[in-house]
Amino acid sequence: MDVWFTENQAAGLRISIQVKDVLARVKTPYQEVVVTDTVGFGRMLTLDDVVQTTERDEFIYHEMLCHVPMCSHPNPRRVLIIGGGDGGAVREVLRHETVEKCDLVEIDGEVVAQSRKHLPSISGMLDDPRVRVIIDDGIKYAAGIRSEYDVIIIDSTDPIGAAVGLFSRTFYEAAFKALAEDGVFAAQTESPFFNSDLIRRISRDMTAVFPNVGLYLACVPTYPGGLWSFTIGSKKYDLQPAAGLRDIHGTRYYNHAVHRAAFALPEFVRDLVPWGKA
Amino acid sequence: MDVWFTENQAAGLRISIQVKDVLARVKTPYQEVVVTDTVGFGRMLTLDDVVQTTERDEFIYHEMLCHVPMCSHPNPRRVLIIGGGDGGAVREVLRHETVEKCDLVEIDGEVVAQSRKHLPSISGMLDDPRVRVIIDDGIKYAAGIRSEYDVIIIDSTDPIGAAVGLFSRTFYEAAFKALAEDGVFAAQTESPFFNSDLIRRISRDMTAVFPNVGLYLACVPTYPGGLWSFTIGSKKYDLQPAAGLRDIHGTRYYNHAVHRAAFALPEFVRDLVPWGKA
Repeated sequence: MDVWFTENQAAGLRISIQVKDVLARVKTPYQEVVVTDTVGFGRMLTLDDVVQTTERDEFIYHEMLCHVPMCSHPNPRRVLIIGGGDGGAVREVLRHETVEKCDLVEIDGEVVAQSRKHLPSISGMLDDPRVRVIIDDGIKYAAGIRSEYDVIIIDSTDPIGAAVGLFSRTFYEAAFKALAEDGVFAAQTESPFFNSDLIRRISRDMTAVFPNVGLYLACVPTYPGGLWSFTIGSKKYDLQPAAGLRDIHGTRYYNHAVHRAAFALPEFVRDLVPWGKA
Repeated sequence: MDVWFTENQAAGLRISIQVKDVLARVKTPYQEVVVTDTVGFGRMLTLDDVVQTTERDEFIYHEMLCHVPMCSHPNPRRVLIIGGGDGGAVREVLRHETVEKCDLVEIDGEVVAQSRKHLPSISGMLDDPRVRVIIDDGIKYAAGIRSEYDVIIIDSTDPIGAAVGLFSRTFYEAAFKALAEDGVFAAQTESPFFNSDLIRRISRDMTAVFPNVGLYLACVPTYPGGLWSFTIGSKKYDLQPAAGLRDIHGTRYYNHAVHRAAFALPEFVRDLVPWGKA
């Protein structure tokens, strides 16, 4: 029997991924958490029928989400990840030997539980002694913090439901305060092809909060349109230095050439950001 | 009624695009040529149920296929395009005012005819006086040419059927001879994510034929996995100069920063090419 999972990615666009087995399906107060085993992408986590991560292509998303901010900071010791209950961002952050603590604040404990159980290649570093897993609302959590983190990374779902507030100027201001005086912030910020209005708003709001802001891109096969954006804000450090990025090993997508190249925006993306045509 | 076109893009991966109307459907000796009007991507050309081009995202593919080789050459006057019967590559080549002639060699006259009729925003420059449309086998055509073109561009289908020979060392040798002594060659060369063995072979074969070879990337939403590769060979000119790329205006994806950035290969792609880890 042919079994296919189908996601409605955008108006008139669907992706379908062939499924071998459904490993977990749990309704939580926030969403439906499903882990499947697929024919072409290894195991896959979906939340409310939206692909979050697959074993086959998660390295692209997680490496680019984490290593661009982490390598931009000369000495990232204290890291906060909001969202990212699958543990992929934690795994990448811990590649950096400077890290002393990595706090993960995930709103839905089932995402962590099912990922621990069914996605060990992604969640495997969640038990590292440097990691603290906090099941809480990341927006509330960040609002209570002052100058505590060197790097904050937002690994959220699409801006629907509980994640909406993570894409707001109020939240960027809270994250700014939660960062040390030389802190760096990065967030996944959706598709330049399908979410152009959102990216316009985010880049304007981030520019109002952080002195150095950038938008960078990577191509994630299972995300709508492939082309994906990340927004980064820095209090002090240059985001695209010609030299001096910190070294990192063991990656399959990220390297320093890719880091710098990711900020080279196609013309239609330059049109979305206030600094694009400056 | 909901009508969806579905393409099998890779093992266990399908893309579906919602269709408003079928504008043309023609069986030719080579393939089934279909033009549809879609909900999210404007009009769309498929050949044997594989998406070739949509009005919404074709600019990315056509600009990156053409402007990287064209801007690498200081004075491209004579251009040969093999495949590309939709006319999108011709349109981009003619943005370069240096061009005196642009020969398009397409094996299937119906692709040209249906594109002229139903895809005017893509095919609209096919009647320019600098353009000669030749309905012929591009492999045979190129084999008879000596030192005649400044730039040769291969805008082919996937390596199936008539297009197989366009992905061979024999063909690269013929293209080398058909180029002037400072000529530049570029071809679409599939997905690094799904066609890694093919890219390994192409990059090795191209390196045996051209003194300067590069692989560059762009993200085309309607192609499998989004991430797409192009292979370029040059007899004389540097492919990633720090400065001195020729100017081009009116693009929506390409610019000189994107040109240089497109050669920054992710680690898993560097593993595919002989110069990647040199």
